[in-house]
Order: sequence, then structure tokens, then C-alpha cells
Amino acid sequence: MSLKLYFAPGACSFVPHSMLELSGAPFEPASVKLHKGEQRSAEYLALNPRGQVPVLVDDGEVVTQIVSILLHLDAKFPQAGILPASGLARTRALSTLAWMNNTVHPTFTHVFMPQKFTEDEGAQKVIRAFAANSYRGLLGEIEVLAAQASPWLTGEKPGALDAYALTLLRWGGYAGIDPTTFPSTWALAQRFAALPAVARAVEREKLQLNVYQPAMAA
Amino acid sequence: MSLKLYFAPGACSFVPHSMLELSGAPFEPASVKLHKGEQRSAEYLALNPRGQVPVLVDDGEVVTQIVSILLHLDAKFPQAGILPASGLARTRALSTLAWMNNTVHPTFTHVFMPQKFTEDEGAQKVIRAFAANSYRGLLGEIEVLAAQASPWLTGEKPGALDAYALTLLRWGGYAGIDPTTFPSTWALAQRFAALPAVARAVEREKLQLNVYQPAMAA
Repeated sequence: MSLKLYFAPGACSFVPHSMLELSGAPFEPASVKLHKGEQRSAEYLALNPRGQVPVLVDDGEVVTQIVSILLHLDAKFPQAGILPASGLARTRALSTLAWMNNTVHPTFTHVFMPQKFTEDEGAQKVIRAFAANSYRGLLGEIEVLAAQASPWLTGEKPGALDAYALTLLRWGGYAGIDPTTFPSTWALAQRFAALPAVARAVEREKLQLNVYQPAMAA
Repeated sequence: MSLKLYFAPGACSFVPHSMLELSGAPFEPASVKLHKGEQRSAEYLALNPRGQVPVLVDDGEVVTQIVSILLHLDAKFPQAGILPASGLARTRALSTLAWMNNTVHPTFTHVFMPQKFTEDEGAQKVIRAFAANSYRGLLGEIEVLAAQASPWLTGEKPGALDAYALTLLRWGGYAGIDPTTFPSTWALAQRFAALPAVARAVEREKLQLNVYQPAMAA
């Protein structure tokens, strides 16, 4: 068995990255430097023609898309607690996972890369401002979930939703949102990052949890 | 056991709607008229505070998000062939499902509801035009998959990906894209819609597969 994960420091690939560390399975981490455009290299595009991270290579088989990678790892390492094992708890976790992936995550894309939606620079500005406001509202929805965590978002075991919540809250800093204004999510993210297995992924990505700079928001 | 599906005619809820029909399980279909704002009624918001379709109610338990509803139905009716049962085929299908849900679907949202991204009407116009062009490219990616279908997107059995492909291609008509210019997807959508079980969902939603009007594109 060989597992290789292509990730970019700070990107959503942190979710499967931290889950692989939690699983305890040996894997080869491969860092893709987005700011150097490595995701558009011929080698990387041969792996994933969409030029996105994460990519999991499991015994030579390429798996893309965070939801699919997580379900693949969950089937492979059921003891890792990536998602609840079955029943309504699993269905609910998948609902939140899908929402983070198809709503919260793409809203941030409008803040971070408005050029993906128009070439007009004026329109990019208004898209970014509008999305930053929407994003704050979505983090508010996550805060409601985090306030009910016991102690993790899916119960007794840390899992994929905790990793995604950390990532999305962290990104908020780049949208001019102070993560500490969401105290339950902020506490959850700190606790999650401090787990010894997760700390290895945090260290490898050199993640700073709070990237908010008050001057940026002004 | 009681199953109730809230759907809106023509919306992405067609995917679980057609899968329920394919499963052969009895269910209560509940139509939500989006143009009348029924998704913002107090009753509906009590069910799904995000005011979106689809919603599945399974013995009183509310399930939201298409990916989660499909995985819930797949666990309940494994013989229905909603997704491949296991292994790499399942992982690959989930990858395509996630991509349709987090990339293709939201791109269409920019065409259909640009007001979700800015209040500026000029910016809405440029967002819509840019997204319609991106959407055409994404339908081109689905066309590559449809050209390899044997005979369905996930193999011998019709499933969730065929239903989503039909929906996304159909929406293209509203973006000024003639569905017949994607011949493999168009043939797949027609074959899928003609399956007796699926035809019941098509009839209930009064779906017209080709809504493209040449004048709109000019």
C-alpha cells in the first residue's frame, strides 16, 4: 500500500492532510507551491488536469476532490473517525461537509480570486467586498455548530469537519475577519491544531492560525 | 418508514427525485414553487433555514444537501445503483458528483442569480456573461465523460451522475447554450429521461429537456 498526498500549505488540502496524520497510516506528503504556479506544471496537470489540490494517489490511482478523498480515506481507515460511522450522525456530517465544500469554500474563492468570475477590475472589487460580507455570515453559521460541539463537531472524535472549520476560519483572516470574534470556532481550531497528530500537519504546512491583520480590515 | 422529498420543478432536486423513483421505494413528493417564494415561507424555513431544495424527510429526520441526501438514499437502497457500490468506481463517481456540486452547479448560479454575488447591476451583467462562458467549458468536460459512458456515466446502471448531467445540460439552455451541441450528453439525457421510473419524475416536474431559445443567445 502506498499513499501520497499532494497539498498546498494553507489550502483546503489541510483537511485530508490532517486526517491522514490522525489515521496514523504512513503516507508521502508532497507540497505544491501555488504561489510558484506548480499546480500548472505539466507534471501536475497530468495528475489533475484541473490544476487543483488536494490530490491523493492510492497505489497509483488518482483521487481528486476533497469530499471524495475524505470518503475514500474513511472507507480505508474506519477507525480514524474522519466521519461518523453510520446512521443519522453520518448523514448530518456529510450534509455539513457538502455545505462547507459547495457554499462556504466557494464564497471565499470570490474574496481570494475574484478574477475567476470576471476580468473587469471594478467588478472584481465589488464581488470581493460582497463575498467578504457573505463569508462573515457563513462563519457565523459554523460558530453555531462549534458552540454545540461536544467536544468536536461530530462528537467524541476529532474529524473532517473540525479540520474544515479550522481552515475556513483561518481563511477569514485574509478576508479581514478576526477569527477570535468567533470564540467557539476559534477555541475548536486551537484545540484541533494542538492534537499531536494534527500538529504534525500544521508544522509541515507552517500554518499560522490567526492571519488577521487589523490594518487590512480598515 | 416514511420518505418525503421537497423538490422544485427543474431544480437540482431532480437528482434525488429521479433516484427515489429508480429505487422503487414509496415516497411523498412535495413541490416547492420557487417563483412563488415558497422556499421562504415560515414552514419551509423551519424545515431548512437556508431555504433551499432538496430536503428529504426520513421518518421525521430532516436531511439537506444533495450529496448527503444521495449518500443517505444509497445506504438505504443499495440495490438502486445510485452510486457504484465500492472501490475505485465509487470513489471516482463521488469525485465527479462533488465537482458537479461544488463547481458546475455554482457556476450556473452566477448565470441564473448574479444578484447573489453583488448588488451592482453592471457587475451582475459581467458576472453573468463570464459565467455563461465558463459554464460552456464545464459542460464540455461532462461531454468527455458522456462520450465514454457505457452506457451510463457510472457503468451498467443509471445513477446519480446521469441525473445531474441531465440537469446541468438542461440549465445550459437558460445560459444560451444549445444542449444538442453536446451530442453525447444530450443523447444520455434523453435516454435517462425515457426510463419509465425517471419519466415519472420528469412528468411530475413537467420538465422540458431542451429549453434553449436561439433568440436568447443572440
